[in-house]
Amino acid sequence: MTIWYGGDYNPEQWPRDVWDSDVQLMQRGGISLATVAVFSWARLEPRPGEYDFGWLDDVLDTLHAGGIRVDLATATASPPPWLAKRHPETLPVTEDGVRLAVGSRQQYCPSSPVYREHARRLVERMVERYADHPALELWHVNNEYGCHVSRCYCDVSAAAFRTWLEARYGSIEELNRAWGTAFWSQRYDAFDEIEPPRAAPTFRNPTQLLDFDRFSSDELLACYDAEVEVIRALSDVPITTNFMGFFKPVDYWKWAPKVDVVSDDTYPDPADPNSAAYAAMVRDLMRSLGGGAPWILMEQAPSAVNWRARNAPKAPGMMRAWSYQAVARGADGVLFFQWRQSEAGSEKFHSGMVPHGGTDTRVWREIEALGAELQRLSADQVGLEGSRVPAQVAIAMDWDSWWAIEQPASPTTVSYLEVLFAWHRALSSLGVTVDFVRAEADLSGYRLVVAPAHFVATDAQVENLAAFARSGGTLVAGFGTAITDEHLHIRLGGYLGAPLREALGIRIEEFAPPAAPDLRATGEGDAPPVPITGDVLGGDVLGATWAEFVRLDDAEARATFTEGALSGWPAVTRRASGGGAGWYVATLPEPDALARLAAAILEDAGIARPDPVGTGGALEVVRRGEYVVIINHGGDDAELNLAGTDLLSGSNAPGLVLPPQGVAIVPTDADG
Amino acid sequence: MTIWYGGDYNPEQWPRDVWDSDVQLMQRGGISLATVAVFSWARLEPRPGEYDFGWLDDVLDTLHAGGIRVDLATATASPPPWLAKRHPETLPVTEDGVRLAVGSRQQYCPSSPVYREHARRLVERMVERYADHPALELWHVNNEYGCHVSRCYCDVSAAAFRTWLEARYGSIEELNRAWGTAFWSQRYDAFDEIEPPRAAPTFRNPTQLLDFDRFSSDELLACYDAEVEVIRALSDVPITTNFMGFFKPVDYWKWAPKVDVVSDDTYPDPADPNSAAYAAMVRDLMRSLGGGAPWILMEQAPSAVNWRARNAPKAPGMMRAWSYQAVARGADGVLFFQWRQSEAGSEKFHSGMVPHGGTDTRVWREIEALGAELQRLSADQVGLEGSRVPAQVAIAMDWDSWWAIEQPASPTTVSYLEVLFAWHRALSSLGVTVDFVRAEADLSGYRLVVAPAHFVATDAQVENLAAFARSGGTLVAGFGTAITDEHLHIRLGGYLGAPLREALGIRIEEFAPPAAPDLRATGEGDAPPVPITGDVLGGDVLGATWAEFVRLDDAEARATFTEGALSGWPAVTRRASGGGAGWYVATLPEPDALARLAAAILEDAGIARPDPVGTGGALEVVRRGEYVVIINHGGDDAELNLAGTDLLSGSNAPGLVLPPQGVAIVPTDADG
Amino acid sequence: MTIWYGGDYNPEQWPRDVWDSDVQLMQRGGISLATVAVFSWARLEPRPGEYDFGWLDDVLDTLHAGGIRVDLATATASPPPWLAKRHPETLPVTEDGVRLAVGSRQQYCPSSPVYREHARRLVERMVERYADHPALELWHVNNEYGCHVSRCYCDVSAAAFRTWLEARYGSIEELNRAWGTAFWSQRYDAFDEIEPPRAAPTFRNPTQLLDFDRFSSDELLACYDAEVEVIRALSDVPITTNFMGFFKPVDYWKWAPKVDVVSDDTYPDPADPNSAAYAAMVRDLMRSLGGGAPWILMEQAPSAVNWRARNAPKAPGMMRAWSYQAVARGADGVLFFQWRQSEAGSEKFHSGMVPHGGTDTRVWREIEALGAELQRLSADQVGLEGSRVPAQVAIAMDWDSWWAIEQPASPTTVSYLEVLFAWHRALSSLGVTVDFVRAEADLSGYRLVVAPAHFVATDAQVENLAAFARSGGTLVAGFGTAITDEHLHIRLGGYLGAPLREALGIRIEEFAPPAAPDLRATGEGDAPPVPITGDVLGGDVLGATWAEFVRLDDAEARATFTEGALSGWPAVTRRASGGGAGWYVATLPEPDALARLAAAILEDAGIARPDPVGTGGALEVVRRGEYVVIINHGGDDAELNLAGTDLLSGSNAPGLVLPPQGVAIVPTDADG
Repeated sequence: MTIWYGGDYNPEQWPRDVWDSDVQLMQRGGISLATVAVFSWARLEPRPGEYDFGWLDDVLDTLHAGGIRVDLATATASPPPWLAKRHPETLPVTEDGVRLAVGSRQQYCPSSPVYREHARRLVERMVERYADHPALELWHVNNEYGCHVSRCYCDVSAAAFRTWLEARYGSIEELNRAWGTAFWSQRYDAFDEIEPPRAAPTFRNPTQLLDFDRFSSDELLACYDAEVEVIRALSDVPITTNFMGFFKPVDYWKWAPKVDVVSDDTYPDPADPNSAAYAAMVRDLMRSLGGGAPWILMEQAPSAVNWRARNAPKAPGMMRAWSYQAVARGADGVLFFQWRQSEAGSEKFHSGMVPHGGTDTRVWREIEALGAELQRLSADQVGLEGSRVPAQVAIAMDWDSWWAIEQPASPTTVSYLEVLFAWHRALSSLGVTVDFVRAEADLSGYRLVVAPAHFVATDAQVENLAAFARSGGTLVAGFGTAITDEHLHIRLGGYLGAPLREALGIRIEEFAPPAAPDLRATGEGDAPPVPITGDVLGGDVLGATWAEFVRLDDAEARATFTEGALSGWPAVTRRASGGGAGWYVATLPEPDALARLAAAILEDAGIARPDPVGTGGALEVVRRGEYVVIINHGGDDAELNLAGTDLLSGSNAPGLVLPPQGVAIVPTDADG
Repeated sequence: MTIWYGGDYNPEQWPRDVWDSDVQLMQRGGISLATVAVFSWARLEPRPGEYDFGWLDDVLDTLHAGGIRVDLATATASPPPWLAKRHPETLPVTEDGVRLAVGSRQQYCPSSPVYREHARRLVERMVERYADHPALELWHVNNEYGCHVSRCYCDVSAAAFRTWLEARYGSIEELNRAWGTAFWSQRYDAFDEIEPPRAAPTFRNPTQLLDFDRFSSDELLACYDAEVEVIRALSDVPITTNFMGFFKPVDYWKWAPKVDVVSDDTYPDPADPNSAAYAAMVRDLMRSLGGGAPWILMEQAPSAVNWRARNAPKAPGMMRAWSYQAVARGADGVLFFQWRQSEAGSEKFHSGMVPHGGTDTRVWREIEALGAELQRLSADQVGLEGSRVPAQVAIAMDWDSWWAIEQPASPTTVSYLEVLFAWHRALSSLGVTVDFVRAEADLSGYRLVVAPAHFVATDAQVENLAAFARSGGTLVAGFGTAITDEHLHIRLGGYLGAPLREALGIRIEEFAPPAAPDLRATGEGDAPPVPITGDVLGGDVLGATWAEFVRLDDAEARATFTEGALSGWPAVTRRASGGGAGWYVATLPEPDALARLAAAILEDAGIARPDPVGTGGALEVVRRGEYVVIINHGGDDAELNLAGTDLLSGSNAPGLVLPPQGVAIVPTDADG
Repeated sequence: MTIWYGGDYNPEQWPRDVWDSDVQLMQRGGISLATVAVFSWARLEPRPGEYDFGWLDDVLDTLHAGGIRVDLATATASPPPWLAKRHPETLPVTEDGVRLAVGSRQQYCPSSPVYREHARRLVERMVERYADHPALELWHVNNEYGCHVSRCYCDVSAAAFRTWLEARYGSIEELNRAWGTAFWSQRYDAFDEIEPPRAAPTFRNPTQLLDFDRFSSDELLACYDAEVEVIRALSDVPITTNFMGFFKPVDYWKWAPKVDVVSDDTYPDPADPNSAAYAAMVRDLMRSLGGGAPWILMEQAPSAVNWRARNAPKAPGMMRAWSYQAVARGADGVLFFQWRQSEAGSEKFHSGMVPHGGTDTRVWREIEALGAELQRLSADQVGLEGSRVPAQVAIAMDWDSWWAIEQPASPTTVSYLEVLFAWHRALSSLGVTVDFVRAEADLSGYRLVVAPAHFVATDAQVENLAAFARSGGTLVAGFGTAITDEHLHIRLGGYLGAPLREALGIRIEEFAPPAAPDLRATGEGDAPPVPITGDVLGGDVLGATWAEFVRLDDAEARATFTEGALSGWPAVTRRASGGGAGWYVATLPEPDALARLAAAILEDAGIARPDPVGTGGALEVVRRGEYVVIINHGGDDAELNLAGTDLLSGSNAPGLVLPPQGVAIVPTDADG
């Protein structure tokens, strides 16, 4: 086995004579896998039905001759301009009715049968031609589905939406019930009266919005399915499509079972001190999507990206440190966008493995050094790749809830991702590895499950979470959880649903989110913090985002609000049950307080926190298989105190000094 | 007589078996009036021309059986989706040309003859069926006219606008003169060349904009008129439509004479410490619109709303305190949106009288308690309802001025409402009750009239205000007043118009609004304050928003600017005239300074300020009929010092302690 | 010769009887030139093909009788509403597809053949009628080209864009190469597949964007050319069109050779303390566009404008001081918009020479006084007008670079104008006069050339700049310079291009712009400053906007970055060459530091800075012809110390006190 190393390779941007030097340079850099043809449709099919594969044959043969394996894209991510010229109805339309034009990329309506048919036709040719190419390692379907166009409001999409709704609800009566159209005179008399949630006079029907989110995710998945069907008919090579971390428009829980290997594109901001912690959360999601199986980091930047307003380069060592973070959290491949930095086009300022400045550059030297290091690890058969990452704690994650809790006309403004990140970071900072799970999944493998802001919860999910608490698990429900069922109908009688109300011993009487003055109800303003207190929080601290009036039925308050009408009302509650417990947290405690609360809950759940592996720096510690990976994300040196020999430096770990961005990999049997 | 108590009742959202318990609960809560059928069109006419009134018969009968009176909506506020499906041209269009879709509410072009015809047809059926229903107390035409769609730029509206203009101006020459089209080559050769003020290369013609505002308000009023015509033909029951406080798009001065009773929907932000003062201003407008007659608070929230970015609940007692504020300022009804908090739809997070959590909740308990209290007041025949609220002071309020002064391409950025609020609040804080008036009205009933930012003034208005000052009244003109006539033509020679220039003894040489640097003329920036000084202001204070060079012709400066080129120029002027005086205020003094100035002006006008009724807290004091209503909006207890027995507590007022949100009602003969 | 004095005169806004008093007042005010008919199309051609010139005959005759010369506009800047009514396709369309409506001004697609034909037809009539009018001094073509509509995305424009592209590239292959369409599958198979850069899913092709900027500027120029062709056929009177300072949409370098005299409209913000310095830069550009020839300040405001959010008036004296600034920097005319302040329309709050308040106003008195003063200067034949402004220093300025460096998907967010202004201001503050030049121009007349942010550089430009440094000149290249060639293809191997890399002795390895954290890559945030140090900067100071890793090949570091990964890397470099030097500046030092750096560079270039002419105040000092003009922009008095007699006051300059906004004009032979 090997840890894949490589990147997107777009040789059509360069003259033929560059290709040979590319392969030589790839060999020098330890590259083992190249993603090819992601944006090649217009080159492969220069006009409808006319194909030019010769150059791609050449590319694949050249790579193969150099020993580079190929992740071959189906090239359908960006149709050629001729498609829009001949079929303008394939161009996507915004909710304001603006039809988007050619000239950038991904300009297709996901529901367009014309686009899908053209894409299938191309994929068929690709598979026929390359299914048996000796360089082929992986099929790469399309690219970053929905990255720019995930919602289309055109008439073609409208028709597809109606078909999808008819399949979901069966009858217009059932849809009317689910959407609550009795209110605001929205009752539909027939499916053909329904439109996508286009620009409207005011708030659009919430369930219509949610269904349009589901529909839109499904339509992209149908595009993927259509291509996969073509490939599977002719090829046994594994298939992937590259995910994009926590990407709101697409429900990856529904996609993950359909890929042979999960792969991910993530571009943390080097200028953001939270990026390493945020990236850790993304890696954990990718591992969880594949059910714990190894995944591939398909794209990251060698240094700066080009699409932020201001694009900082990665600090020296940062690319290596973040690459090992992915490996530590389950990745068996470390790839980049892109091999050679473009000379022209929209991404010319996106860094490349071979920069504008050539190989006498820091960026290339770091690329080359990491390639050599990974080759050595694979050659030494240390067995990191292919191994699993154990976790006793899980966070319930749910796209329906993400879509719904961020809708307008809600109690307050919540960033679902910020809430998730707060909890993931608090737990990770204690040295605990966290999986993500669906709330209806088998939770028996975990000792602690956290369900924060799980706004939309089916009866089955409510029961599953409650059963977990009843059967000895420790459940933490956060504010905003199980407010509604899958149709966005309120769970009446105190929210949460009866099983969870019982498991937690509480019900919620009224929301009381912090709010800022707004004389004439326009604009937003910042929400003020809410003071809370409690030993589990470390005393008097602040909460953010949310507050509410929680009634104790059969639980004890472990922290309380301390100001205004909320004063004395519970902010954190706990109900003991057979061996386990049900916690409820009615606000978002500030980071340090949340970490203290998380520590108390871990202790309550009987989960031992690992001993510190060193002092100084800012250490991320993750166990994978037989090893502990330690990364210093801080600005100062760290000194390790665990025994064993670091695979990377060959030094003995006790006393080993990790500089900023330093990494060590130490056998776990050496641990403590 | 009775003080109406109740709310919007939308039983079609709930199963039939809930309806009976609704009525029982209404009885328990002291409910006397329910607004029904506001959003029922799609249910009443499920397809064109096919009606289903059975369920509404049932609702009305059930309410009647329970002794609940009905405010019956005509159900035309939100057309069913089938109307848009069959007549897409009824959908409104934004100034950017976006046609708004079904899926929310109010998706109709106000000028659409198709919409109006469908609405009339429905109203006809409603009136035929229910004109003689014994539960019927009030007709509720449509709902919150213009709330989401007050301006439509479609071709149908364009044609209606041209018709309106032709009626207003008679000839294209007259329109060209009024609009000043000699400038910028805008001369129209025929009416059919005119468009609504759609998105254009730069500033649109100001008079076109103003006329489009007038037209749009008139078109909504024509919708109302069309329904009223149908009702009046068959029913003698009084008619209302619910206003929305200071609602910019609609000129309520033109509407008020056409309703039998003024009713109002107002949703002050519980998170805003200015809300009680702001709501007081709204109540005073509602009373003034009806010429002092009692009005109905048709909608307020039991606790939180759902349409702000962050929605704070009302603090305990706040709903009661704000309800009494409405009564004190002339309301004979206190109603809510809505009875039972929705389970689904866009307003499910808007609080209801019966919350999601049921009746074992603070919100319900407060609803029930207030209901009982109001019933007792009515039963005791204390005579609060039906009585009048006396005022010696009026503020001139004008929709034309509101529309015009907030246009772009003006001297500076002014919020008309903020200026009005500053003056209303300053006067109210001194215990003085304020009416709102039109500047052309008979002002002889007042001793003091304030005309702030009355940008657009007809010759008649200029003369009327000047005559008031000439005939012994005290007139205060604020900056921005009478800059133009009704066509937005400048009043040359010093602004204000000759009669006002004479009455005030001043003319304005040049505007000098405070401005922030802006290197390349993009963006806004905040306006810096302008220092002013004067005994009437309490010394050296700050002004905001506006400044100018005022020339004294026959007036004395009572305050001056103190910095820059303005230094030494008058900021406040006074000219004495036969028994009265004309004041001019060239900036917006900070709140405390404005209150001091208002006190000086009251004294000058010979208006006695009432003695303080207590100490501590933050007391609102209003006289209605034979009573003084006292409300403590502060965070601390107040102790009352006036004699008499509080109707609510039965305690003697002297020494009575009003906690935060506390209310007392004391007979005026006990006053002093 | 005379210094022209006057303004836009729009008598069609006023009754006929005002015209005579206008001319009398103009005579009183010393007015010599009036711009007429700018917005008169709808009046001159009230319906298609029907002309009404009688009133304009009257206007010109009346002016002529009063001795006022006429700058006669072709009246094509704003078509009458009937054009849009009859030819809706002449209305411009935004990138989102919104067709802009009549009702403001300039509502035409610059590429519209229908508009151009109608315009030509009108111009033909105008020239036929007025070519020989005795009052005619100047033709004023159109007005502020592109001011509101500089980019049109309609189908007519799309076709014109394709034609323009075909002419530029010859073949679709060449376009594909230039645009780099091999990336993102953008390859065009035929010109008819190309669209303007309309709203698209994500970043549009950068070269397409740049070409659309070039095309759009050219299309406006073609409109101008079309009118000029008509005029030249029948008239020898000189022609101008009014520029708008640094106006991004239009490349004035291409326009300037086509006007007989450069004229400019500039409206510095009186509320901005930077305005005088910024206006100085604009004046220098205008002089430079005409190759040093005198130009005309065609429009400035007598006091306030009306189109900012908040519009401050000019302080007393400011209008006069800024007028002399224009004269000092090469203007032979000082004109205003507009003569009489409008009574109606979108610019009624824009100040006029004759204000709303009439002639008993400060504004009129200042207008009148300046008119008298300028008349006296002309009468005394002091010879200021017509003379040249000498400069040894030039800044390279380039519209392609402006368009390109502000595109999205760039290394960071740069305001091209802010960078230019920083350098201009630093040099001007040292008493040095600066020209603007094209980078390919003959630079031999200068000793120092600064090329900041010259992002797009052709091979010829790169070579020309390098040759300047090689041949004894002092060249300063700023960050962002010569990153790409004219197709926006990266200059590989270290940016800058080989000749400049050699001349400067450096290459750039990687950009490292300061950036703020952004967890999920949305929003912008402010860029933090970057600490730098160096004697030439005055020690430890801060840089802004940009930073990068610069490699020294054959240069010395004169300042360095001091933090993070950049620590120790060069921030300012210098390479000596035969008599001259090549400096490179990798960030934007804060103003004081940049002034110190500029002083060091001036010394290095052997350019003597003039001695201070006084103490106190904030003095602008410019030499024009035989005179030094001194203006005090500060808030305090200044005392002059140079010898000679001030032309304006007649006082001896040594010891002369200049109050705030004061001006003195002293013969240079008196200097030092």
